[in-house]
Amino acid sequence: MGNFVDCCRGFWCGTKNPNVRISLPVVCFVWQIAMIILFGVFVRYDEESDAHWSEHRHEKNITSDIENDFYFRYPSFQDVHVMIFVGFGFLMTFMKRYSFGGVGFNFLIGAFGLQWALLMQGWFHSLDPTDGTIKIGIENIINADFCVAGCLIAYGALLGKVSPVQLMILTLFGITLFAVEEHIILSLLHARDSGGSMVIHTFGAYYGLTISWILYRPKLDQSKHLGSSVYHSDVFAMIGTLFLWMFWPSFNSAISDHGDGQHRAAINTYLALAASVLTTFAISSLSAKKGKLDMVHIQNATLAAGVGMGTAAEFMITPYGSLIVGFLCGILSMFGYLVLTPFMEKYMKIQDTCGIHNLHAMPGILGGVIGAITAATASESVYGHEGLINTFDFEGAFANRTPAIQGGFQAAGICVALVFGIVGGIIVGCILRLPFWGDPSDDNCFDDEVYWEVPEDEESIPPILEYNSHMVGKSADRMSDTNFSVEQS
Amino acid sequence: MGNFVDCCRGFWCGTKNPNVRISLPVVCFVWQIAMIILFGVFVRYDEESDAHWSEHRHEKNITSDIENDFYFRYPSFQDVHVMIFVGFGFLMTFMKRYSFGGVGFNFLIGAFGLQWALLMQGWFHSLDPTDGTIKIGIENIINADFCVAGCLIAYGALLGKVSPVQLMILTLFGITLFAVEEHIILSLLHARDSGGSMVIHTFGAYYGLTISWILYRPKLDQSKHLGSSVYHSDVFAMIGTLFLWMFWPSFNSAISDHGDGQHRAAINTYLALAASVLTTFAISSLSAKKGKLDMVHIQNATLAAGVGMGTAAEFMITPYGSLIVGFLCGILSMFGYLVLTPFMEKYMKIQDTCGIHNLHAMPGILGGVIGAITAATASESVYGHEGLINTFDFEGAFANRTPAIQGGFQAAGICVALVFGIVGGIIVGCILRLPFWGDPSDDNCFDDEVYWEVPEDEESIPPILEYNSHMVGKSADRMSDTNFSVEQS
Amino acid sequence: MGNFVDCCRGFWCGTKNPNVRISLPVVCFVWQIAMIILFGVFVRYDEESDAHWSEHRHEKNITSDIENDFYFRYPSFQDVHVMIFVGFGFLMTFMKRYSFGGVGFNFLIGAFGLQWALLMQGWFHSLDPTDGTIKIGIENIINADFCVAGCLIAYGALLGKVSPVQLMILTLFGITLFAVEEHIILSLLHARDSGGSMVIHTFGAYYGLTISWILYRPKLDQSKHLGSSVYHSDVFAMIGTLFLWMFWPSFNSAISDHGDGQHRAAINTYLALAASVLTTFAISSLSAKKGKLDMVHIQNATLAAGVGMGTAAEFMITPYGSLIVGFLCGILSMFGYLVLTPFMEKYMKIQDTCGIHNLHAMPGILGGVIGAITAATASESVYGHEGLINTFDFEGAFANRTPAIQGGFQAAGICVALVFGIVGGIIVGCILRLPFWGDPSDDNCFDDEVYWEVPEDEESIPPILEYNSHMVGKSADRMSDTNFSVEQS
Repeated sequence: MGNFVDCCRGFWCGTKNPNVRISLPVVCFVWQIAMIILFGVFVRYDEESDAHWSEHRHEKNITSDIENDFYFRYPSFQDVHVMIFVGFGFLMTFMKRYSFGGVGFNFLIGAFGLQWALLMQGWFHSLDPTDGTIKIGIENIINADFCVAGCLIAYGALLGKVSPVQLMILTLFGITLFAVEEHIILSLLHARDSGGSMVIHTFGAYYGLTISWILYRPKLDQSKHLGSSVYHSDVFAMIGTLFLWMFWPSFNSAISDHGDGQHRAAINTYLALAASVLTTFAISSLSAKKGKLDMVHIQNATLAAGVGMGTAAEFMITPYGSLIVGFLCGILSMFGYLVLTPFMEKYMKIQDTCGIHNLHAMPGILGGVIGAITAATASESVYGHEGLINTFDFEGAFANRTPAIQGGFQAAGICVALVFGIVGGIIVGCILRLPFWGDPSDDNCFDDEVYWEVPEDEESIPPILEYNSHMVGKSADRMSDTNFSVEQS
Repeated sequence: MGNFVDCCRGFWCGTKNPNVRISLPVVCFVWQIAMIILFGVFVRYDEESDAHWSEHRHEKNITSDIENDFYFRYPSFQDVHVMIFVGFGFLMTFMKRYSFGGVGFNFLIGAFGLQWALLMQGWFHSLDPTDGTIKIGIENIINADFCVAGCLIAYGALLGKVSPVQLMILTLFGITLFAVEEHIILSLLHARDSGGSMVIHTFGAYYGLTISWILYRPKLDQSKHLGSSVYHSDVFAMIGTLFLWMFWPSFNSAISDHGDGQHRAAINTYLALAASVLTTFAISSLSAKKGKLDMVHIQNATLAAGVGMGTAAEFMITPYGSLIVGFLCGILSMFGYLVLTPFMEKYMKIQDTCGIHNLHAMPGILGGVIGAITAATASESVYGHEGLINTFDFEGAFANRTPAIQGGFQAAGICVALVFGIVGGIIVGCILRLPFWGDPSDDNCFDDEVYWEVPEDEESIPPILEYNSHMVGKSADRMSDTNFSVEQS
Repeated sequence: MGNFVDCCRGFWCGTKNPNVRISLPVVCFVWQIAMIILFGVFVRYDEESDAHWSEHRHEKNITSDIENDFYFRYPSFQDVHVMIFVGFGFLMTFMKRYSFGGVGFNFLIGAFGLQWALLMQGWFHSLDPTDGTIKIGIENIINADFCVAGCLIAYGALLGKVSPVQLMILTLFGITLFAVEEHIILSLLHARDSGGSMVIHTFGAYYGLTISWILYRPKLDQSKHLGSSVYHSDVFAMIGTLFLWMFWPSFNSAISDHGDGQHRAAINTYLALAASVLTTFAISSLSAKKGKLDMVHIQNATLAAGVGMGTAAEFMITPYGSLIVGFLCGILSMFGYLVLTPFMEKYMKIQDTCGIHNLHAMPGILGGVIGAITAATASESVYGHEGLINTFDFEGAFANRTPAIQGGFQAAGICVALVFGIVGGIIVGCILRLPFWGDPSDDNCFDDEVYWEVPEDEESIPPILEYNSHMVGKSADRMSDTNFSVEQS
């Protein structure tokens, strides 16, 4: 029995080997080939991207090519694409020696995730019953990017503590869970969630936090010196922040209704985001001894309003309603950074590298609640008869639904997202604890050296070494005279 | 009497206290709450972003959702948004230790300014007489971003020398002045200025320069060592330059007429910008001893053509006319950097951190003049009967205006912009001289340490300190052996 | 005779003088003025950007301004514009001390090239026979950006080894050759190449590689220490990579057919790019001793799929076909980085700074081949009768062409691109070998000091100098105490 325990301990707690030379290529190749085969069997162009479009257009009496959905959504798609790869990617470059991992693994997760998402979401939403294939168009690729966002949020909690192989597994399961959860919330409950407060942010954040809780590292403070930022890494992170902030109106409006739906969603998000910037600056200054602003707050809490408007953006929440949402999200998120994150790390053993609890989890739930309230209080006087039907899609099987009932289903959606995030996170977290995924040891976290060839950085070579040992290039020449005087002394 | 003078001197010239822990949060909260209240009273969706759109569409026989103004302008809006927050923001990161302040306070000004601009501009341009509310849509939020640009230009002259509280005040008054000036120029004088050579650039630049003149700091050279760039901060600034340069065609075409108006404005700006790059490189090289290019020039003077085309972009200035404008703007701006900026600093006591006189003030006036000439020489043979009316909006009360008269009113617009910039700048400058706004002392300018928690930068710790005193993390370990040998000697 | 040889040797191999103070301004001014004159003679607005548009619209019964080509293509144009200036520009900032040159000269080439391209391409494609002028609109400026891309690819092979004057000459000839080659491939052979696998990438890459071969520098290893990256320069380069990767769907769809053509081209490119990320990560890890990823691979090979889809993107290649193309391109490009680049440098004397052979040349040819095969196998059952005609433009003189024959002409296009690249490269290479263009000597390559005023970098000042000699500002103050103790010892 003792032997067995020892054996287990050795298995679970043995020396970490973060060499992914075999596992990462195997996972990448196997999954990419699987994607090719599954796409071959299942995925085809939809009628707007198929070469038969011109015939289809004549049949349906569509007057112009400009009414192809491509022209309604492509600009928003590109903005969303920038948010996923530059926005999330550069937001995660803030650490002094984990910028490669931040932006690089973000890239890997995104590129794999969107392929798997096209399949998973396709099976639920775009399956053509006549031939059993998935028909894809511009809306599918926006949704695939959205789906990826959920996994990237989860990565935010784990940044610097996991191996790329673990991330690929996290993504595989994350996308799968996402598609099921999304189907339940959007199709079965028929909730509206165009910017994904519930579907993307709440799910993604709790999925990541639960995994982080299961992968708790008691000795993470051994890597603490690498977990902070340096001056220019904070500036890099601002690239991420700003692209997320600027393009969030496109995120929340990308798949909402043509015409007023997209128009209103963009305006509401624009306003909410502006308000949260002011509350973030205010509280960040208020909370510091000498009133000094903290870059961590500016980089993150300013974005909370985008999350908080994810459900209600396309509703008639009114411009001042949007400002109030932004105001509250900024406060809520700052409260998280100042109070909850340290508390959670100390007492709940949740190590949340990027503070996704503050940026995605709480504002996501708040966004869901705001959406439920806004939906429940909708009325024909505000939306118009046709507008109410269009906005909430009260058609077909849902033609008899009232706004009040809709509000209830919206609230139910939050619970579904939470349950999927937490239960899914427990399962996937346990899988990721298996000891052969190549994660770094506790004193090796937040360090690109583990998975990347890091260039010799002239500037970071300690000064003494520079003149006592082997010298390189120019700076060596410059110093040859001064060298002597030192040796003299 | 002597006591009073002493008292005043103490009040005006006492030790600076840049602690904004109370003032900044108060200003942010008060103004954000005021915005919420004012938006609650005044701001509603316009008919294209309201849920009644589908009914409105049927009434007006609009065949497709794609004719919602959103689809004409949203891509340009997002480009403008990028210019405001990434373009201006990163252009101001060029200093070695003021990148946080550059991009961060730019963010703060922008987020507050756009809210106040929606109100101020709304009262003048979008007030619905039936119910006294402002109806907002995509064009309003583009205009709000434009309005903010004026204040960010002004910030360029003051970069590194003012507190965030001063910036909030500068923005509050700046937006107010802008809206009045814009109303006079565009509505009363009925001048055209789609890219804002006069309204945005001339006004913004003289507003900022006048304030900088009033806030003259005689001992600013005490901060000189921080006012320059380092290698990678110049690369960060190029992000700003390039996004401004690339998206300027969107800036100048964002609110011009549907169809050929937007199309022509984009092409003209594209061409002018290309020409100014060549003249900038030429003169920058010509002016240096060994022909070496200066990053300050490349970062700024290449953009002058966008400013210079701000008024004439939507006119039939012809492609080669655009190239000539770009050519001249590059020369003018380079002349400013090489001759005028040093002159102004030395003899006129105007300290212009970013050189906005060269990038915005002079090209702005030039742009106004070019616009006036182009308008005055417009003819039906070139524009066509309908085209002339559309381009200059010779309708309603202005149906009888001739191009020649229009040219005169365009010229009058330049003067209005100048007067508002200078007089407004004097007033606001005096307000900002009050001693309780938390601005830094002369030897503390251009330093993020004053308002930001700046991360300990491993690389910038002076080498001696690194081995004689408290050591942190990895580099300490690496150096432990070498330490010994030094102490030995 | 001996004297003549000596004289020649002195002429060809004399001490390099990289001072461009006269030559660069002269070239810039002469060419810009030439552009102004040529534009004055030849270039006018087309009917969609001319003020007569509203009349034209009534004549042609176009129902809405939204059908102006501007609204079909402007969002894609802006994405392409970002790729040219930020994408290519920042991809070339990866070296520790050549970031200014990378992003700055890219800017210069782009700004000149697009003007010359508008003329050259205009003469071939947009000449109005009624008045002998070139009529330009949105499609022309996209094509001008494309044309510039060819020269920027060539620059990639020469990065750090040539003077700005040489680059201007390279661009002048490159654009000229491009326009002729494009005319032969697209108009005479009537091949399709919407994303330019052949026209842009194959041509541009072989043009650059041939020039690099002719300008071979035997002692380039003297500059080797500057040719590598530092940590943050690799992060800057990722900005370039990601903007190229994200916007490549816009690149390949920008000038394809309205409606399904643009829609399908974007989706196909999106999918191919995703697949190549996974193969790149896989092989990069597999090829390193400890499985560590190499930033050079991630920055470049991930993009090969965009090149490889350049011809076939608008065809019905199917979604899984796109994934296969991406998969293959990633492998091919990685093979190039791991095997061919070292081989070419050692045995073929081709010094390819950015590895354009791996990113553009090979994937470009592969893309041409894939395009030819896809075209040859096209059928009415897949495309529909009308779709086949639209996609391959089987109209007018080409109404009788079959897909099989089209495939042959596509293949012929690859050869034309290759021949133009290599022959053009030989000619231009010989011109660039003339000794008065101001290129740097072999031990001075990859160094911004040669052509730029590089700021004194506090961090890069060798430590000893910092306390023994002249000290500047703050860090001096901080160190005054410690100074003493050192001198004591």
